[in-house]
Amino acid sequence: MTTAKPSGPIPPEFAQQLPVEAWIERAGGTPLFVYDLAIVAARIARLRAALPAGVDLHYAIKANPLPDLLAAAAPLVDGFDIASVGELGRALGVMAPDRISFAGPGKRDEELDAAIRAGVTLNLESEGEAARALAIADRLAIRPRLAVRVNPDFELRGSGMRMGGRASPFGIDAARVPALVKQLIAAGADWRGFHIFAGSQSLDTAAIAETQAQTLGLAARLAEAIGAGPPLVNLGGGFGIPYFAGDTPVDVEAIGQALGEQLDRRDAALAGSRFAIELGRWLVGEAGVYLTRVIDRKESGGETFLIVDGGLNHHLAASGNFGTVVRRNYPVAVASRRDAPVDEVATIVGPLCTPLDRLADKVALPTAQVGDVIAIFASGAYGPTASPSAFLGHAPARELLIGS
Amino acid sequence: MTTAKPSGPIPPEFAQQLPVEAWIERAGGTPLFVYDLAIVAARIARLRAALPAGVDLHYAIKANPLPDLLAAAAPLVDGFDIASVGELGRALGVMAPDRISFAGPGKRDEELDAAIRAGVTLNLESEGEAARALAIADRLAIRPRLAVRVNPDFELRGSGMRMGGRASPFGIDAARVPALVKQLIAAGADWRGFHIFAGSQSLDTAAIAETQAQTLGLAARLAEAIGAGPPLVNLGGGFGIPYFAGDTPVDVEAIGQALGEQLDRRDAALAGSRFAIELGRWLVGEAGVYLTRVIDRKESGGETFLIVDGGLNHHLAASGNFGTVVRRNYPVAVASRRDAPVDEVATIVGPLCTPLDRLADKVALPTAQVGDVIAIFASGAYGPTASPSAFLGHAPARELLIGS
Repeated sequence: MTTAKPSGPIPPEFAQQLPVEAWIERAGGTPLFVYDLAIVAARIARLRAALPAGVDLHYAIKANPLPDLLAAAAPLVDGFDIASVGELGRALGVMAPDRISFAGPGKRDEELDAAIRAGVTLNLESEGEAARALAIADRLAIRPRLAVRVNPDFELRGSGMRMGGRASPFGIDAARVPALVKQLIAAGADWRGFHIFAGSQSLDTAAIAETQAQTLGLAARLAEAIGAGPPLVNLGGGFGIPYFAGDTPVDVEAIGQALGEQLDRRDAALAGSRFAIELGRWLVGEAGVYLTRVIDRKESGGETFLIVDGGLNHHLAASGNFGTVVRRNYPVAVASRRDAPVDEVATIVGPLCTPLDRLADKVALPTAQVGDVIAIFASGAYGPTASPSAFLGHAPARELLIGS
Repeated sequence: MTTAKPSGPIPPEFAQQLPVEAWIERAGGTPLFVYDLAIVAARIARLRAALPAGVDLHYAIKANPLPDLLAAAAPLVDGFDIASVGELGRALGVMAPDRISFAGPGKRDEELDAAIRAGVTLNLESEGEAARALAIADRLAIRPRLAVRVNPDFELRGSGMRMGGRASPFGIDAARVPALVKQLIAAGADWRGFHIFAGSQSLDTAAIAETQAQTLGLAARLAEAIGAGPPLVNLGGGFGIPYFAGDTPVDVEAIGQALGEQLDRRDAALAGSRFAIELGRWLVGEAGVYLTRVIDRKESGGETFLIVDGGLNHHLAASGNFGTVVRRNYPVAVASRRDAPVDEVATIVGPLCTPLDRLADKVALPTAQVGDVIAIFASGAYGPTASPSAFLGHAPARELLIGS
């Protein structure tokens, strides 16, 4: 048997035999993403129990904007964070406008216009964007809800995506923020506070807690320089989920406790502020599984290949081609043979004519045959919307929400 | 001025000022991919002049399946190569079925059925797929056109994507091919020959010529073992295009001359065969340009960022996140200021909330302002269809064919 490479940890909720054929029949076929709302709801409940009072929970819908999921998740969280006018349209149907905030560099005038008309909060990313937003609000005769996204002078350690502590397209360098906020207030805008996002996909509990402390310190210094307290401080998120062998989950209870202590001793400048944690991946990532059926089984050069009907066109991240340098295996199983003995090493590839289309590389599995169903776990965030769905002309993946 | 990083070579056809605003108006706005058919036609004409008689030219439509382009290119080439039933639908409208071949591991039964009914050639990728194809053809009472994709026992040197010389999901290991072809012939199928693809995106002229010689040698050995000559040998392609600083184009005249000499002295087993070169990227890649407008200009940490309305959601490859290990800059220009002096170093990013959304990193350009148009060249292949178009809910890119 060829030496196997490790695959990531299967989330505990999916440890047992799953009714995959029933899900597939309900959805109409494979390839299929299944998202379990009960798992999302449990994550939210656990986090709410861990967070101190006065800290809101926002869902960054970019992680998974499936309309059924948004409708079901809306009553469970305090707000949605959006990143485009397309996401605005999806959010407005299920969430009150004053609980929606819109971040992202490069908002076009049409997007600013739509957001101001709808009454959502704009997280301003530059002085230029602030000037355009004020001009549009003036023309519309609407008092705009404006927050400022701050490019912090620190970064989240252990972060898969560093978004602070350096020159950045995101937000406004902290030193220039007080002058801008004073200008917004003087212009009569409804200043909503700060959005401070230092990184994402970190599994380092201590680093997340430390970053939250730094974020509170920065918000306090900015508030003092402005001479007014921010109504809301969005502390960002950054909680990662385990994808690969050796990854361990973050300790949200420890993070919540540290945040409570930090808030108890916070600067007087933040005495009247509310706070929010914004999460995408952590809420939904482990709640999703990608199911794809074995179309062919072949041997080549002494290796076994399982060729499945889904691939990087639906799940680019699992193929290792989206923001990763070293390809590693997501958690994977033969869903139709969970109880069978592990007796071979196989590579799982999709139907695309490119060597990049590899969903699992040399993993140890029960022997799978044509017709078996392969499950790729940790697939609830950044799946189909973060994948090149038109690549090579294959059909899009199906998506199914269960547990609702 | 910050130290600039190099960007790739602008194709000579785009060296001058371009009527970008007229193109944008015609298409209805930015972000926009413009493809110039005249450049595609010139590439085809040059290659035809270079290739020896008896060598067909196929277009692998996965590189750019825009319907207008397929319709315009169809009369200029001898066949289309497709990779899915979706591409089959696009190809059948404009190309005769007997000039279409269908490759790709993991063809589903519905795809085999549709292809056999349509009368296109299937490039079989495994013994299992061969058995399914024969069974379906039998049920349909149609004599199927079947070729065999061979996993060669060598690879294309200098290839961006190696597809031979190792255990592979593509094709059937060469040693097992004769038995399979004999079985196809015995079953009464219309055996069309071999498809031998050893790699892609190589800029090494000598390696391409050497690989073609090896491919002919392999085809001859297989034909001798089978005891019948293949009607067609698809030699694959693999011609790369320059994307990055230092890249130089392949010498197609040298490749054509070497191929002519190789064909002149080919083995008797291939005396009655036709040959084909299959190209995607080389035909269309340099014919396309991606146009995106500057939405914001900002400074952070002493660096200048141009934030544009297009990004990795349309052009994943240019962001460096599709199959590349080290991010390098595609050829880029401020299309609306081609004659202005180069006087700053700027980083060009899209509107997505991720540090991955970087179209050009620290490139030396004329100073661009909000409203200017940025051009990313070498964008005619693997653009919108190879990008996560639904990511963050932004609108898809527009596409425009000119020169037709």
